[in-house]
Amino acid sequence: MSALQKLLSLIVPPDPALSARAQAHLDGLTKPPGSLGRLEELARRVVEITGNDPPRVRRPVIFTLAGDHGVVAEGVSAYPQVVTAQMLENFLRGGAAVNVLARHAGARVVIADFGVAAPLASHPALVVKKVAPGTQNFCRGPAMTRGQAVQAIEGGIALAEGEAAAGSDLIGLGEMGIGNTTAASAITAALTGAPVEAVTGRGTGIDEAAWERKVAIIRQALAVNRPDPADAMDVLAKVGGFEIAGLVGVVLAGAAARIPVVVDGFIAGAAALVAVKLKEEVRHFLLASHCSAERGHRVILEHLGLRPYLDLEMRLGEGTGAALAFVLIQAAVKIYTEMATFKSAGVSGKQP
Amino acid sequence: MSALQKLLSLIVPPDPALSARAQAHLDGLTKPPGSLGRLEELARRVVEITGNDPPRVRRPVIFTLAGDHGVVAEGVSAYPQVVTAQMLENFLRGGAAVNVLARHAGARVVIADFGVAAPLASHPALVVKKVAPGTQNFCRGPAMTRGQAVQAIEGGIALAEGEAAAGSDLIGLGEMGIGNTTAASAITAALTGAPVEAVTGRGTGIDEAAWERKVAIIRQALAVNRPDPADAMDVLAKVGGFEIAGLVGVVLAGAAARIPVVVDGFIAGAAALVAVKLKEEVRHFLLASHCSAERGHRVILEHLGLRPYLDLEMRLGEGTGAALAFVLIQAAVKIYTEMATFKSAGVSGKQP
Repeated sequence: MSALQKLLSLIVPPDPALSARAQAHLDGLTKPPGSLGRLEELARRVVEITGNDPPRVRRPVIFTLAGDHGVVAEGVSAYPQVVTAQMLENFLRGGAAVNVLARHAGARVVIADFGVAAPLASHPALVVKKVAPGTQNFCRGPAMTRGQAVQAIEGGIALAEGEAAAGSDLIGLGEMGIGNTTAASAITAALTGAPVEAVTGRGTGIDEAAWERKVAIIRQALAVNRPDPADAMDVLAKVGGFEIAGLVGVVLAGAAARIPVVVDGFIAGAAALVAVKLKEEVRHFLLASHCSAERGHRVILEHLGLRPYLDLEMRLGEGTGAALAFVLIQAAVKIYTEMATFKSAGVSGKQP
Repeated sequence: MSALQKLLSLIVPPDPALSARAQAHLDGLTKPPGSLGRLEELARRVVEITGNDPPRVRRPVIFTLAGDHGVVAEGVSAYPQVVTAQMLENFLRGGAAVNVLARHAGARVVIADFGVAAPLASHPALVVKKVAPGTQNFCRGPAMTRGQAVQAIEGGIALAEGEAAAGSDLIGLGEMGIGNTTAASAITAALTGAPVEAVTGRGTGIDEAAWERKVAIIRQALAVNRPDPADAMDVLAKVGGFEIAGLVGVVLAGAAARIPVVVDGFIAGAAALVAVKLKEEVRHFLLASHCSAERGHRVILEHLGLRPYLDLEMRLGEGTGAALAFVLIQAAVKIYTEMATFKSAGVSGKQP
């Protein structure tokens, strides 16, 4: 059994009794039962996923993985490829949106190069897991080999296992890669069967003509590569990206370690989708943060049966939606652990 | 001119140039323009409302005002009236949901008695603005006199002006009062013309039969009192509550001082509705936090043209939704002030 197969075998559904016990605790707090709605659901899910009752969030972490995409040669993005590397440097200096929002949530950001095309100066905070300097142009052949896909997944697993060993107890997914909404759309179409135009959006902001070209490119990629929808690894290798594969590894390691994994936007959603297709039970460990303005994201959320907690029309990626969701999760955990009970506060219950 | 009339005359719409300037700043940050969606909108609105560019949030405050309602004699609530006083004591001990979420947001909670029926032990943190020990049963006559409504509004104004003088720069509305969804439904029906059943919900959790009784009671209250929809003060006095009137004062003082006022759920929404009916320009200073599970809240939000930032199916009140929104507003302000610009970070812009 390979290391990856072994990890998959460790992912088992949580005990439903945990959720019921958590709800009983929430119902004893000084508020009408259920009146905190989905905030209660968040607390319950953290208990269920982690088995910790009371729940805690002490060391939240966001994995912002970067990679480049050969398909940008087809003109699918509004920004030049060099922006991937430039933004990585911006992440390392702490000036990007994900840095700001992670600081707001008290979360670490792990920044890793899984396949950036441009050379990067070494930096103490940069984790190098580079598989290759960008994927191949997948409208002419596979984006990567199956071996490279496994290598990137294992890179993500190693990253997440390292953080878990250091005490991380809440994981957020983030990414950067010019062209990666094109890969996410191709993955989503291949794995869900949804029409390409229903899962293809404007990315960083392309116009109508460029959108039509993007749809055509994705159709071509699927026609040329014929990814097998029953084989998620095949889909990932043929039309995915290195940073997406890295996130698949993060999701799998998180699920195996019973750490809640907060999905960010569309690209992180595509990684979560691949992970669930590799191992169905992964879905129990996922929390949706927000619903991206990228149309394909809604298709993924519905397919995974996830309901996002925020709908702010964001479409930036990086882990920004996950970081905002962290703040809600922390609020939910505090509700669970800091509120008085009807009994402790001497508050009367419902009238008979 | 009365003190209240004078305050109303101070409420003028903000300069739209502020919003345009704020968006120009946001567009220079290292992200595709508009890609942070409604988080950008939040930052822009704080700049527009306050005139502070860059925006700041240093001293957020939630006003949780309490009052009792004579209409509970009709059996409209699932909880006994004494819970209002018991919960006020819970607020003062810091054990309620609003305390937990306000601490999470780094916000103060100002707790005030505007008309609780049961006697309350004095407490250094309890502000006493009691108009009377509960309103009259408004299905038999007016809830309060017009003079009492003005007195409660002035109490709210004084509270908010005191906090503003101490440096508070973000206001949240909160409330506690067994029976107050009944008052909020009556106000909403009277001021928006919506049918009673469309604005009446389950409150703290009544069953179908009790809901039908609640609808009948509100219809009776409107028939007996005939509140004048063109006279918001008349509506407030006849079918409102002391804590709701207090919140009207908080809204008016916030708007006059150009402080963003974050509406909480249904009852706070009814107070905001009354304030807007007293002075149309108030709407420029309001931010909706969440959409309550109480059905009447959506009617109010649509009537005021406000779109909430959170939809978590909460229905607790107290200021809990406002506290959660504070965390998003603080995130938006940090995005505005802490992110690198394309220029400062040396990141390339869009392709030509």
